[in-house]
Amino acid sequence: MTIQSFIPPRRILMGPGPSDISPQVLQALSRPTVGHLDPLFIAMMDELKQLLKYAFQTENEFTIAVSAPGSAGMEACFVNLIEAGDKVIVCRNGVFGERMRENVIRAGGEAVVVDDEWGAPVTVDKVAQALKDNPDAKMVAFVHAETSTGAVSDAQAIGALAKQYGALTIVDTVTSLGGVPLKVDEWQLDAVYSGSQKCLSCVPGLAPLTFSAQAIEKIQRRSTPVQSWFLDQSLVLGYWSGEGKRSYHHTAPVNSLYALHEALLILKNEGLENAWQRHQAMHEKLKIGLEKLGFRFVVEQAYRLPQLNAVYLPQGIDEAKVRNHLLQTYNLEVGAGLGALAGKAWRIGLMGYGAREENVALCLRALEESLTL
Amino acid sequence: MTIQSFIPPRRILMGPGPSDISPQVLQALSRPTVGHLDPLFIAMMDELKQLLKYAFQTENEFTIAVSAPGSAGMEACFVNLIEAGDKVIVCRNGVFGERMRENVIRAGGEAVVVDDEWGAPVTVDKVAQALKDNPDAKMVAFVHAETSTGAVSDAQAIGALAKQYGALTIVDTVTSLGGVPLKVDEWQLDAVYSGSQKCLSCVPGLAPLTFSAQAIEKIQRRSTPVQSWFLDQSLVLGYWSGEGKRSYHHTAPVNSLYALHEALLILKNEGLENAWQRHQAMHEKLKIGLEKLGFRFVVEQAYRLPQLNAVYLPQGIDEAKVRNHLLQTYNLEVGAGLGALAGKAWRIGLMGYGAREENVALCLRALEESLTL
Repeated sequence: MTIQSFIPPRRILMGPGPSDISPQVLQALSRPTVGHLDPLFIAMMDELKQLLKYAFQTENEFTIAVSAPGSAGMEACFVNLIEAGDKVIVCRNGVFGERMRENVIRAGGEAVVVDDEWGAPVTVDKVAQALKDNPDAKMVAFVHAETSTGAVSDAQAIGALAKQYGALTIVDTVTSLGGVPLKVDEWQLDAVYSGSQKCLSCVPGLAPLTFSAQAIEKIQRRSTPVQSWFLDQSLVLGYWSGEGKRSYHHTAPVNSLYALHEALLILKNEGLENAWQRHQAMHEKLKIGLEKLGFRFVVEQAYRLPQLNAVYLPQGIDEAKVRNHLLQTYNLEVGAGLGALAGKAWRIGLMGYGAREENVALCLRALEESLTL
Repeated sequence: MTIQSFIPPRRILMGPGPSDISPQVLQALSRPTVGHLDPLFIAMMDELKQLLKYAFQTENEFTIAVSAPGSAGMEACFVNLIEAGDKVIVCRNGVFGERMRENVIRAGGEAVVVDDEWGAPVTVDKVAQALKDNPDAKMVAFVHAETSTGAVSDAQAIGALAKQYGALTIVDTVTSLGGVPLKVDEWQLDAVYSGSQKCLSCVPGLAPLTFSAQAIEKIQRRSTPVQSWFLDQSLVLGYWSGEGKRSYHHTAPVNSLYALHEALLILKNEGLENAWQRHQAMHEKLKIGLEKLGFRFVVEQAYRLPQLNAVYLPQGIDEAKVRNHLLQTYNLEVGAGLGALAGKAWRIGLMGYGAREENVALCLRALEESLTL
């Protein structure tokens, strides 16, 4: 087999992520690599922390990017916060709630599952009941924006509830960060992770992460070491911490961090509120067009994420065939359904740099031309 | 604080990694992102597996890149192969042997440590004795090329020994892959991980990994789940596997994988043997120059890695001051000592694309001009 350099086409990414990436971010990505202990790089990391704090709306001193994808960000929360036998209330209304449950078990915790239907948000009253029934629960884990269904849950209400019962929160904001309001401090969230490749429109491979003072306190009170060496955040802190000498833990993914810095800078320059409004405006436009074409939204209007449009296809459509046609003919990627929605629905992303007029227009026109195939 | 785009200088990277990166690889890195389930991307991953097999000199079907740095590659080996109570012989002759021991403990195993001095290779006879004394040992873990000292150990002999006693091997080849001979199949090694940012001269953030059939068999016989969800290779395999439909596990770091593909292609086109010879030739040249300047090698000639030159500084040199001067004046990065060698020695890397005449010449001339400071 003769292997050549891989020259990918320019796809328009309107799936559940990775999302479209600004040329500015790709340019930043390819700047010359410097050492991971280079003083200039350390200074860039300090800026990156500032930018992440802005995106998360937090003053948490511990705000970094895990050197691995969002799933590793999730695991970093569970393995650092859970000690053997800790009871965790896990809200499950899609793929990622179930993944959280898996993480709790593998970290040696006990999961109390609060189930909601796929496409529905987490029912806050059920969480309240679970907290009442389990006064020994140490944590509540939930997904703010379910990437598998496009439903947003009330993170503010769940955050307040958990505090009322003295429980910490672990919150998946992989798809929400930068796309819809998220206010880590105001909402009193404790361990919050995200992904680089959704509404931040950075390359995949990094997981923004922030821990509240209370989360850090729980970690410091541990009587057993974190089961993962790579994800042990007390060790990672020695590298990301602002004071004095940085100590080597692992080699940081230097170039990916350049890209994240640039992507967050773009977000900061636009302004969070403007970004949220842009996502909403593009969603409204897409929604009207999709409904005209016979698509039906999986999620009720009140809980719909603008950046992830999960829609049932019009009757009689061969979804895989049309999806493939969109990719081959228009270089347009839309996402297949995941889990319970596989084969039944699509997930059309309007994330970050992807939430633009030209993408919405292309998507609607291409669909119109392709649905009759 | 006003934050601007980060524009790094062009450093010449002659530390312990990240190493100098070819412009071709940085160009590949910044090509347009495609979806992680895009058929074209899946085809590229198949090529990447072929290229990794060539680099590792293996036919192992399970040969992939972990979506995280080398330390995560290390952890992937231990958490997948160890079940509670498994006894592992860990050879420790530097920082990374100690890290292996940490990993064994955190994965619930029992570590039997075989110690050698910093700068010395693993003593094969000591490993033989440990295997004799511990007939219940399931694995032998060792570092092929110690990045902290620049010593190479006899992976072939240790591999044969382990097989003789029915034990599996876990081998750190982070610094050896692509720089010195490494023959996974011929040497009967079982779980072998590396890093992208050393002699492969790719950006940091990926960990090449290969498992032998026997390693896979041990994983398949597990009675308990792997403690890490993110690093559970039986799940990861569903995404990397060549047969049928790829199933989503986590979002692959698409652009970094482009870069790894390109870096491995460069290695393939040069030829492994030629790359090994080039590292050796550049080392010989650097060695003569360094010794003239009064540097003394930490490692005896017979066990010296050409790509990682650990050297004691001439007497009376303020190492931090000179190192900083090299960086500020010549944009030249050399590595500080790590662990027991901190403050006492440097680590001068000649890795991958960095092992070139111009780098050796620059390094020697800049040192000559700077040592008298």
